[in-house]
Amino acid sequence: MTKTVTAALLLIGNEILSGRVRDENLPFLAEQLNDIGVQLRECRVVRDEEGEIVTAVNALRASHDYVFTTGGIGPTHDDITADSIAKAFGREIGYHPEARARLEAHYARTGAELNEARLRMARVPDGGSLVDNPISTAPGFRVENVFVLAGVPVVMRAMFESLRHELDGGAPVRSLAIAAHLSEGVMAAGLAELQGRYAGIDIGSYPFYRGGRVGTSIVSRGTDEAALEALGGELRALMRELGSEPIEEVNDPA
Amino acid sequence: MTKTVTAALLLIGNEILSGRVRDENLPFLAEQLNDIGVQLRECRVVRDEEGEIVTAVNALRASHDYVFTTGGIGPTHDDITADSIAKAFGREIGYHPEARARLEAHYARTGAELNEARLRMARVPDGGSLVDNPISTAPGFRVENVFVLAGVPVVMRAMFESLRHELDGGAPVRSLAIAAHLSEGVMAAGLAELQGRYAGIDIGSYPFYRGGRVGTSIVSRGTDEAALEALGGELRALMRELGSEPIEEVNDPA
Repeated sequence: MTKTVTAALLLIGNEILSGRVRDENLPFLAEQLNDIGVQLRECRVVRDEEGEIVTAVNALRASHDYVFTTGGIGPTHDDITADSIAKAFGREIGYHPEARARLEAHYARTGAELNEARLRMARVPDGGSLVDNPISTAPGFRVENVFVLAGVPVVMRAMFESLRHELDGGAPVRSLAIAAHLSEGVMAAGLAELQGRYAGIDIGSYPFYRGGRVGTSIVSRGTDEAALEALGGELRALMRELGSEPIEEVNDPA
Repeated sequence: MTKTVTAALLLIGNEILSGRVRDENLPFLAEQLNDIGVQLRECRVVRDEEGEIVTAVNALRASHDYVFTTGGIGPTHDDITADSIAKAFGREIGYHPEARARLEAHYARTGAELNEARLRMARVPDGGSLVDNPISTAPGFRVENVFVLAGVPVVMRAMFESLRHELDGGAPVRSLAIAAHLSEGVMAAGLAELQGRYAGIDIGSYPFYRGGRVGTSIVSRGTDEAALEALGGELRALMRELGSEPIEEVNDPA
């Protein structure tokens, strides 16, 4: 029996809830985590409000192996994530010597002033460890099972590469996607019967309309490749029995 | 003093948490709700698991004026949203006569069979009212302050048009977006000072890299248009003082 390792994601930022910015971090993290056997199980989006961040972080870190937050770690007044994380853990917060040294070196190199606002980006809750930022220097950080990352996707991705080796995953979830030009309602009874027999596999049904034709993608996900393959065979047979040739879809992302 | 009306969104579906499907419903609802004076304050994404849906719905409906759910109302075994909503409210669930009549008329028209799986789409928690679906007939529904909508974006949008008149909004939030080729760290002190004086306005700072140049968009949001305009004047003056000509951005979406 392989272990199940789960994660939750907390997206922090008014700009996502206003619709101004479309999140790109959830799909990226979902796929990357899945590759190393960590299952993203839940996501929350909250405003830049301390109370909301604290409540969400504490709920998520208690119920998942890992929590990732994105957003709110820049130099401006609306960047309150670091303080909120400190509060969630009941820890003090201060300037992290190594983070400060990196910022000092960076601004010395660029010639820009390391003012008080920029120095805020070196603040880390006590006992936190740094997450490298190869793009724009100002680091993220980790406190226990919570990783605090930038919201800007290119920076978040680079930070994830920096921390990936710290994650201890379980069995990666494999997926198998097979479509047919059949409506969901036609396949539903057969799918329910298959789901009953393949309890360890999660069978999802997603209708589509392409080129004027109705169809359904069946996405099966699980850690047992042999079971997945057997289910795939039965699924294809079901589709043919219902009068439609199965269409193999690209299985990546899971 | 105008009232503040808030909403939360619950996205239901394994396919979003696996990264396979990228959500489009949050940005759409955020903008549409904002236009009628309803502020989207929180979003959660959960799997197709009854316990998780029940917990999230009950948390969100207690703390917001309206809750919208998307996903999980089709005919297949993984569509468990209606049952989960019934459970969250402690209500029974059964076939809604009007929903059933609509499905019967629809399938009589198309010649397809209204089998047991498709009939599941007429199940509504006791006391729930229907939300019309002009695209594919099978309705959504409303129970108290919770609106249960389809996950497929084109259907969800049509359902939202159908229910929009039921929403009682407050003052719409206006937004003003002004950018400059200045880094966040250079503007931070001035922005914090402005935020201190314009307490009713939410000033957000978003760095960007365009055409090889660093810049920052300042997005100010609030219900008081006069205050927003005054703040805009001060912001432009701050940017000029720091050596960069303000760039007016498109203010829609808020």
